[in-house]
Amino acid sequence: MMQRIANLLVMKDDQVLLLKKPRRGWYVAPGGKMDTGESIYNAAVREFKEETGTEPVNAHLKCVYTMVIKDETDTVVNDEWMLFTFIADDLIGKPFTTTVEGELEWHPVESLKTLPMAEGDRTNLLFAVSQQGMQYGTFYYTEEFELLKEEIQNSLEG
Amino acid sequence: MMQRIANLLVMKDDQVLLLKKPRRGWYVAPGGKMDTGESIYNAAVREFKEETGTEPVNAHLKCVYTMVIKDETDTVVNDEWMLFTFIADDLIGKPFTTTVEGELEWHPVESLKTLPMAEGDRTNLLFAVSQQGMQYGTFYYTEEFELLKEEIQNSLEG
Repeated sequence: MMQRIANLLVMKDDQVLLLKKPRRGWYVAPGGKMDTGESIYNAAVREFKEETGTEPVNAHLKCVYTMVIKDETDTVVNDEWMLFTFIADDLIGKPFTTTVEGELEWHPVESLKTLPMAEGDRTNLLFAVSQQGMQYGTFYYTEEFELLKEEIQNSLEG
Repeated sequence: MMQRIANLLVMKDDQVLLLKKPRRGWYVAPGGKMDTGESIYNAAVREFKEETGTEPVNAHLKCVYTMVIKDETDTVVNDEWMLFTFIADDLIGKPFTTTVEGELEWHPVESLKTLPMAEGDRTNLLFAVSQQGMQYGTFYYTEEFELLKEEIQNSLEG
């Protein structure tokens, strides 16, 4: 089964709730793997609840990406996977601070420009917090998750 | 590789461009399988161009579904697949009328309620032409493509 990841960024009072992963100290939006038969919406909400202990409010989809990993010889090494990014404007409950997945922290929206993270995630999260409509694209990464190339398309609801 | 289908419905002057498939006479929105490394947007636009000979204008995503097929013993028989449905409000060029895929026909939007089609497609296309925001869900089908169950979620951009 192709890997499908759904994540969710809550933006409230110009702050975003991010997860700092222990291995590299990189920031991500809370999320994880979709289950079999699950919709992308249910996956994003379930993963957010599991990772933060809170319930997102008004979640909606902002970005859908195809993700490809290439090795040093420019060969695709993994089955590609897909990333579905939702945004929400509030949450119910008080988020965990420390979890097995990492530290949950509120950061000002503008810090998305500078916090350490995968460069594709930066493109993705900055779009989600600042632009109307939807973003689509393909990200090509090395096995060390260095961004090789991104191909992006945007759309607005008519 | 999990199957991923992207389709696209053009709605212009209260008419929609549908493809009548030869086998059952069921109507679908033009579309087809995503290529490796392709984004969902590029796949929907490419497939629409290939099947209609025209270019969609202002395409944007409306629906994302997880699709599951079950046999008579309620066992999942296929890898699940995903369906991404876009809508556009115009097209450039004059559509083919007959193709290897079937007949291309303009129909009034309201005929989506009655034309023969898979019941999940009806849910999907009626949402795309008449509702704001996005729809997500899971469709469970028999091997004969009879709809067993649908689980639907909607969202509005905040």
